[in-house]
Amino acid sequence: MEIGSRDQPPKHEEKLENGSRKWRFHGKQELNRASSLSVRGILKAITDNLNEADQRPTIMLGCGDPSEYPCFRTTPIAEDALVDAIRSAKFNCYAPAIGILPARRSVADYLSEDLPYKLSPDDVCLTVGARHAIEVILTVLAQPGANILLPRPGYPYYEVVATLSHLEVRHFDLLPEQGWEVDLDGLEALADDNTVALVIINPGNPCGNVFTYDHLQKVAKTARKLGILVIADEVYSHLAFGGNPFVPMGVFGSIAPVLTIGTLSKRWIVPGWRLGWIATTDPNGILQKSGIVESIKSYLEIAADPATVIQGAVPQILEKTTGCFFQKIITVLTEAADICYGELKEIPCITCPHKPEGSMSVMVKLNLLVLDGIEDDMDFCTKLAKEESVIILPGVAVGLKNWLRVTFAIESTPLKDGLGRVKAFCLRHAKKE
Amino acid sequence: MEIGSRDQPPKHEEKLENGSRKWRFHGKQELNRASSLSVRGILKAITDNLNEADQRPTIMLGCGDPSEYPCFRTTPIAEDALVDAIRSAKFNCYAPAIGILPARRSVADYLSEDLPYKLSPDDVCLTVGARHAIEVILTVLAQPGANILLPRPGYPYYEVVATLSHLEVRHFDLLPEQGWEVDLDGLEALADDNTVALVIINPGNPCGNVFTYDHLQKVAKTARKLGILVIADEVYSHLAFGGNPFVPMGVFGSIAPVLTIGTLSKRWIVPGWRLGWIATTDPNGILQKSGIVESIKSYLEIAADPATVIQGAVPQILEKTTGCFFQKIITVLTEAADICYGELKEIPCITCPHKPEGSMSVMVKLNLLVLDGIEDDMDFCTKLAKEESVIILPGVAVGLKNWLRVTFAIESTPLKDGLGRVKAFCLRHAKKE
Repeated sequence: MEIGSRDQPPKHEEKLENGSRKWRFHGKQELNRASSLSVRGILKAITDNLNEADQRPTIMLGCGDPSEYPCFRTTPIAEDALVDAIRSAKFNCYAPAIGILPARRSVADYLSEDLPYKLSPDDVCLTVGARHAIEVILTVLAQPGANILLPRPGYPYYEVVATLSHLEVRHFDLLPEQGWEVDLDGLEALADDNTVALVIINPGNPCGNVFTYDHLQKVAKTARKLGILVIADEVYSHLAFGGNPFVPMGVFGSIAPVLTIGTLSKRWIVPGWRLGWIATTDPNGILQKSGIVESIKSYLEIAADPATVIQGAVPQILEKTTGCFFQKIITVLTEAADICYGELKEIPCITCPHKPEGSMSVMVKLNLLVLDGIEDDMDFCTKLAKEESVIILPGVAVGLKNWLRVTFAIESTPLKDGLGRVKAFCLRHAKKE
Repeated sequence: MEIGSRDQPPKHEEKLENGSRKWRFHGKQELNRASSLSVRGILKAITDNLNEADQRPTIMLGCGDPSEYPCFRTTPIAEDALVDAIRSAKFNCYAPAIGILPARRSVADYLSEDLPYKLSPDDVCLTVGARHAIEVILTVLAQPGANILLPRPGYPYYEVVATLSHLEVRHFDLLPEQGWEVDLDGLEALADDNTVALVIINPGNPCGNVFTYDHLQKVAKTARKLGILVIADEVYSHLAFGGNPFVPMGVFGSIAPVLTIGTLSKRWIVPGWRLGWIATTDPNGILQKSGIVESIKSYLEIAADPATVIQGAVPQILEKTTGCFFQKIITVLTEAADICYGELKEIPCITCPHKPEGSMSVMVKLNLLVLDGIEDDMDFCTKLAKEESVIILPGVAVGLKNWLRVTFAIESTPLKDGLGRVKAFCLRHAKKE
């Protein structure tokens, strides 16, 4: 027993009244607003509407985390690697701010396999997952007056961080009728002397598209013309199962400098391990010369670190995972995308402009004209949660009002069940003709 | 082979010249400056002076991470808990922003053991180690015009985050001649209507002191009088081995509301696991009413998360670790503190005003008058690294110029060796009388 306080009720309590006291601190509305715009914040708002009386299981089609399903369980190689790191007792220590050398080296080698040049460990910094990588990069780029070009639809965490960092956001469109390619003319028209970067997410979140080699090259050339860097969000790298193979943006690093964001989360289905990275895929060293690399490293000195013990597992994970595991995941995702696309086609108020061929989600358009008493996408998702215990992310969360982002990366039975409930919901709310 | 780029060297390279291009992005001096003030940044600057030709091992007396030493190895209970969490495959998923319920519940129960009231899981949020907890709290408190009272000497990460968040810092003194107690009159004189909080670090980092029950109560009463909250940095909680037992500040939560910062890092010697927490030890619910709790939770929605798999291990770690392990660590630290104090007394240019009785470090004063050719504490530490391969943190890093922070939490043999080298260094640089 280290303190005697349990037996000593504070005697001063009577003398000091709480009611009348003026406390000088208070909450911060700015943060409350920002969090309400994040995917987590919006999903939480929707999930709050679930009806506890519904006996059916809740089906989550709102977030790219299939780790709970047996068919998506990570490879034993990853689990063994982490167990080995623990048992070695070598990774209980603090790590250098940019991450431990063996982990950075293995990420550099892993990424170099698909690049026309070789990365060094110094080209890689480890982060607390990919979201943290976004925070790091946008904080570094947020100079007074600067602006950044973000895709619409996109991943709203970019907007959240940019807003809190006072980095101005300008949106370029992804074109559904062109397989969600970038509207390059529109993008160019947005830029000015204060534009510092553009973001490209490939494979696409939320659209489920995979950009072609030629299109990515055009994006790089546009960046070069504008004098800006490319932030390549490759969180879903290699999760491509349609006609277009996955091409890392770093392939075009000699056209314009690229900061590549990656993670173990999606390809290895371990989003809870919080291990991501930033790679400077920039063979001409422009990011180094401009001071961006130094500032990223400076920010990492004062930012949160990924667990050293998980860093310790990275070399074994990256070097030993077999093609067999990757292929299994691709097969499961391909089936899920097929089911999803097929089921969605049967729902009258929903249009899917582009069959998903990568990542874990797809964007579909909501036709509110044929629905009765549904105001917008948020209303649709809220009522769907309440009536059918199915969670879908409203398009407004990713920048497209009255669209939906449907995540199909779950097992086929609940996927069919979930989309069946969406159909039942739509039929029930259909306008009487 | 997913891309053909390896065999297709980019043809455009010839047409586009890099040299003449104007890129519109650049690094951020503000971040570079901030990182140079962090403990990590300063230790890095000092370590850069190590002489590679020195055959002796480098001895690190600069940072509270003894995990590499066998006598400080964490308990098998912690390792087993993490292995079990991995093998269960239940914690590969994303976690709620505030942390998973079983982990928050176990932290609440663990802290409640030493409090006169019971915390609920909702009183606890998990963070990426204690440093991240500081970031979260200070970001929430950084309102325009607000100021915060920090101890001098202290832990410089508070200053780093406050500066980047535009939260004004005011320093109150810890008094070496009074066992590093807070100069309460000085503290009170610093506060004004814009003061929102004070920080108290107990057991003391960097001073190695442990505050008495009575002194902590006085601090709480001062906070109440000023209408401010107390941030209780209890990173070294329970690591007390002198006359004063460790008393958590939350014991006085009914006098003034307390945000308690804690972690697995020090008591379990796993700083690389990055698992910390913020507990609202505030039985009157003032932090709730003021909106602080909501803003902390909002910020966590958009901040980095501790790895879910490590969160999954927390209940087993907190519930099953035996007193035997804790006692062993206390015994090792007590011995180390004795050796450290004894050896330091033998060094003529160094004065230790207070024998360490907690945490892992002690502050000692440097008498530059008896040294030849040593400009200040930074110069002392730089030359010490170069000549003796011993790393010590200069006092300037923690707010006291021409003092040193000596970390004694290492094995006794290298500790004696390291302090012997410091003595040799001081004798070699002593002024000839």
